[in-house]
Amino acid sequence: MNSYIQEQIRSYQEKYKHTGRLLIKCPDQPGIVSAVTQFLHKHEANIIESNQYTTDPHNGLFFMRIEFDSPRLPQEESVLREKFKEIGDQFNMTWTLKGAYNIKKTAIFASKELHCLRELLLEWQSGDLIADIQMVVSNHEDAKELVESFNLPFYHIPANKHIRKQVEEQQLQLLKDHEIDVIVLARYMQILTPEFVAAHPFKIINIHHSFLPAFIGANPHKRAHERGVKLIGATSHYVTNDLDEGPIIEQDIMRVDHRDSVDDLKKMGRSIERSVLARGVKWHLEDRLIVHENKTIVF
Amino acid sequence: MNSYIQEQIRSYQEKYKHTGRLLIKCPDQPGIVSAVTQFLHKHEANIIESNQYTTDPHNGLFFMRIEFDSPRLPQEESVLREKFKEIGDQFNMTWTLKGAYNIKKTAIFASKELHCLRELLLEWQSGDLIADIQMVVSNHEDAKELVESFNLPFYHIPANKHIRKQVEEQQLQLLKDHEIDVIVLARYMQILTPEFVAAHPFKIINIHHSFLPAFIGANPHKRAHERGVKLIGATSHYVTNDLDEGPIIEQDIMRVDHRDSVDDLKKMGRSIERSVLARGVKWHLEDRLIVHENKTIVF
Amino acid sequence: MNSYIQEQIRSYQEKYKHTGRLLIKCPDQPGIVSAVTQFLHKHEANIIESNQYTTDPHNGLFFMRIEFDSPRLPQEESVLREKFKEIGDQFNMTWTLKGAYNIKKTAIFASKELHCLRELLLEWQSGDLIADIQMVVSNHEDAKELVESFNLPFYHIPANKHIRKQVEEQQLQLLKDHEIDVIVLARYMQILTPEFVAAHPFKIINIHHSFLPAFIGANPHKRAHERGVKLIGATSHYVTNDLDEGPIIEQDIMRVDHRDSVDDLKKMGRSIERSVLARGVKWHLEDRLIVHENKTIVF
Amino acid sequence: MNSYIQEQIRSYQEKYKHTGRLLIKCPDQPGIVSAVTQFLHKHEANIIESNQYTTDPHNGLFFMRIEFDSPRLPQEESVLREKFKEIGDQFNMTWTLKGAYNIKKTAIFASKELHCLRELLLEWQSGDLIADIQMVVSNHEDAKELVESFNLPFYHIPANKHIRKQVEEQQLQLLKDHEIDVIVLARYMQILTPEFVAAHPFKIINIHHSFLPAFIGANPHKRAHERGVKLIGATSHYVTNDLDEGPIIEQDIMRVDHRDSVDDLKKMGRSIERSVLARGVKWHLEDRLIVHENKTIVF
Repeated sequence: MNSYIQEQIRSYQEKYKHTGRLLIKCPDQPGIVSAVTQFLHKHEANIIESNQYTTDPHNGLFFMRIEFDSPRLPQEESVLREKFKEIGDQFNMTWTLKGAYNIKKTAIFASKELHCLRELLLEWQSGDLIADIQMVVSNHEDAKELVESFNLPFYHIPANKHIRKQVEEQQLQLLKDHEIDVIVLARYMQILTPEFVAAHPFKIINIHHSFLPAFIGANPHKRAHERGVKLIGATSHYVTNDLDEGPIIEQDIMRVDHRDSVDDLKKMGRSIERSVLARGVKWHLEDRLIVHENKTIVF
Repeated sequence: MNSYIQEQIRSYQEKYKHTGRLLIKCPDQPGIVSAVTQFLHKHEANIIESNQYTTDPHNGLFFMRIEFDSPRLPQEESVLREKFKEIGDQFNMTWTLKGAYNIKKTAIFASKELHCLRELLLEWQSGDLIADIQMVVSNHEDAKELVESFNLPFYHIPANKHIRKQVEEQQLQLLKDHEIDVIVLARYMQILTPEFVAAHPFKIINIHHSFLPAFIGANPHKRAHERGVKLIGATSHYVTNDLDEGPIIEQDIMRVDHRDSVDDLKKMGRSIERSVLARGVKWHLEDRLIVHENKTIVF
Repeated sequence: MNSYIQEQIRSYQEKYKHTGRLLIKCPDQPGIVSAVTQFLHKHEANIIESNQYTTDPHNGLFFMRIEFDSPRLPQEESVLREKFKEIGDQFNMTWTLKGAYNIKKTAIFASKELHCLRELLLEWQSGDLIADIQMVVSNHEDAKELVESFNLPFYHIPANKHIRKQVEEQQLQLLKDHEIDVIVLARYMQILTPEFVAAHPFKIINIHHSFLPAFIGANPHKRAHERGVKLIGATSHYVTNDLDEGPIIEQDIMRVDHRDSVDDLKKMGRSIERSVLARGVKWHLEDRLIVHENKTIVF
Repeated sequence: MNSYIQEQIRSYQEKYKHTGRLLIKCPDQPGIVSAVTQFLHKHEANIIESNQYTTDPHNGLFFMRIEFDSPRLPQEESVLREKFKEIGDQFNMTWTLKGAYNIKKTAIFASKELHCLRELLLEWQSGDLIADIQMVVSNHEDAKELVESFNLPFYHIPANKHIRKQVEEQQLQLLKDHEIDVIVLARYMQILTPEFVAAHPFKIINIHHSFLPAFIGANPHKRAHERGVKLIGATSHYVTNDLDEGPIIEQDIMRVDHRDSVDDLKKMGRSIERSVLARGVKWHLEDRLIVHENKTIVF
């Protein structure tokens, strides 16, 4: 990591040293917000931003994200967690409480098309994407020069569907050794095994080069061209074991017209893919996403 | 038709009394543009706007739309057509040459959801959609009051899949009696028979309430909600015999999020449907559309 | 009011008969959310949607909007208000607590350009804009036929800058007689006196036909054309005594290009103005707006 | 220049070796298109794409861009130019005729904010921006490491308003030595002298961090925040001697809301600035821009 990026991360951590994030999911019932905010009040936490959502005020599910400021952070982060357990249990919550100063360890998987990887590295370098990028893994060598110019480790692990098992073993070992929190598939064109996916529930983010559910699978731009659509798009989503069927995080589109060839669509698509993936990754890194059934709540 | 609209149409016809539109489709080869523009030049026509497109400069198809201004219009419209035949034959063209002052006779088919019908009538009334609306046909009576408040004939022809044949006979007779040029399906929820469609090739425009090819068929908003998409859309297209598979004219989208219920999606969808249909209809009325295979060229 | 609209409003009121809305603005300090949510909990109110915002967690201003569901509504609406006073006083709040079933009495002011008026009436008629429209006031007769076709009272009050005082006296009397809550200036081209504005603080919504602060004042499309911009826009805002300088509620834009004449910009502008005004009015009607200094908080 | 980029440029030049571009500006009169297309036809040129625009069909100005394919290119490029002179003179045209395979020599001026520079280098490296980047010039050293990682020459020329004259002399010498065609100001925060601007008419492209004409001058995001706008934007334009008043090439916007601080606006603004500048530069490099009065025609 070069010194400029280190400086960016240090200044981020300084700025957010007293900032915590509480994410909650539980059956809705009266009194949840009241209990949570009393808890925060008691622990000198001032609410900076709060979002909540209920699928149905009568017997629905309740979701909340609170960003708060407390002088007890970062020292008492684990103490706060310990104490919050009581409320969590009382309301049958799934919850996390973490300091914003914890930077997520990130691995990027790439292949031959490098625009998404470049975008992530560029945003990271300019301090607009706060992640601890530990490695870039690729089945090709195309990204090597780029990655090493950012002083990041590059792992070339050739892959194809016949050696998927061995390849993933290598990858899993790497991810484990580096205690990776998030895996970003930046146009990594290999399918992952159910075992690999199961080992990282809602921690793998992929970019698909169409507005799903249109053009699931291969060659979306070619098929978009054949169908004569007037919009093309891209979708970032969590990876599950159903190809291109995981919870959608973000989507966007761009207008196209009859003059645009398949190659034009690909070129225009790149700029949507870049931004749709980068936004999705940032929201994940900022703990703004909660998965519910096959959907995301974006707070 | 009320007097305000009559005045709008008269002033439109006065403004465009010397304006002609030439649409061409033919195998590409050198010399087409040169021959066409010489022809126009010879007949005192000044080109106002010209658009062309070639699928491939080597042996592709060539498309062109020219809007021109000539003092010989409107008197010599048919003379110009007669004379253009030679060039048309020489280059093996499919072509039309018409005065912009010819207003298309239009029928709107509606059902119970009236937002698209309202939009068309409103745009028409304000002089932003230049059509000669001859009638509104519906299988329900919901639109009657609205349509008659615009002094337009309303035909209530109840329909369902069991009496499709008889219903269409009545409709076809009406369309024939009024020499209708364009049929707009403004959320008319009945499927048309192949015979009905074949009688009006690329003259029937439909609005589908999703960004096709996603969510073909019924209940797109319910399915969009289940899939957890972050965008919803609408598509206007020519009707062919493959449901929701005809040439796409226009599409647009709107951002949605996890808080939006199916009803919210429907409500938001209405405003996209209105504008996507109105734009598509206007382009058709202005002879801006050429169909090629299953796509539209929008000039 | 016709029966269809009456039915829409009845069904809205039935659906939201237990729904209340609480809006708060006060100096930020720990414990506000906790106190408010405890209060709601105590009065059997379940939070449906909650939004908050703090200008600065340390000594900033705090804003909150809560939509809640309580079986005590509508009967005990004034009781709840009475009881909330204690909390309001304790935290030095500016606040309102109202049932969502209260429909706002609305007056629309129009002139010769009718597209915004048409949009509001159309949305109202289809049940997408829930207001109790009491009248349309205009300084011209152009809108008369349209307004009366919706069975709404139309008041023609000719106006110009020389008789502003007398005109406003007539208007103020009408607004008072009908206990009007909101005034929508739907391209009403007259300037209001400071007295008129002062009598309706943050209750008058205007649409300006540019993206403010560009092209303040007259003829924005002509000036946009001269400047050669690639985007045109519209802005809905609360009216204050500084022309086009009031708190912005909503803005949107559309792409234009060199081919578009001033008339084209006006035509395209109409469709942005329509939707930007309609969105702004809806947010106001749903109590989603809080004014702070010269800005709006949109919850 | 690294080998990957050299390869991209070589393959671009191979692909477009027979492609020419003709740009025309002249008083409109009948017969122009006819004469031009006959000329192309005679020289075995097939029209790939053609765009034209007339300010007014009667005595207006006429603009045209034709992209054509001819086997006589690249060998006879200057011959074609020589022969076209006759038509150019006949119609009093300002015109250029060039092969698309000529790559423009480009200089980028940067300062401390590097996002626009990064975007241009990234697009260039991926073969999406075809330029012959000869140098990056900056008044600070922040960009040095980045630029040199792309194997490009970096010139550090400290600048301030007191030494403007000497600084520009150095810069002008560099630009002359390298025969620079285009200068891109990628958030270069220094004002250029009238002499510098006059030496490069419509060859200097700047990015301004607001949607002009709103927020001309310094600190647009701070002023946007104070005004409470709901959209922020960016504008790429040719540099003239009126600050932020040159012909606008491209603009775009992004939605913001009350929660966004000045720093948030800056951060969001960066991503608009990047893409608006890159699009503007690409259009210039592809000879898609004609300046007319203070506007651009974008073909």
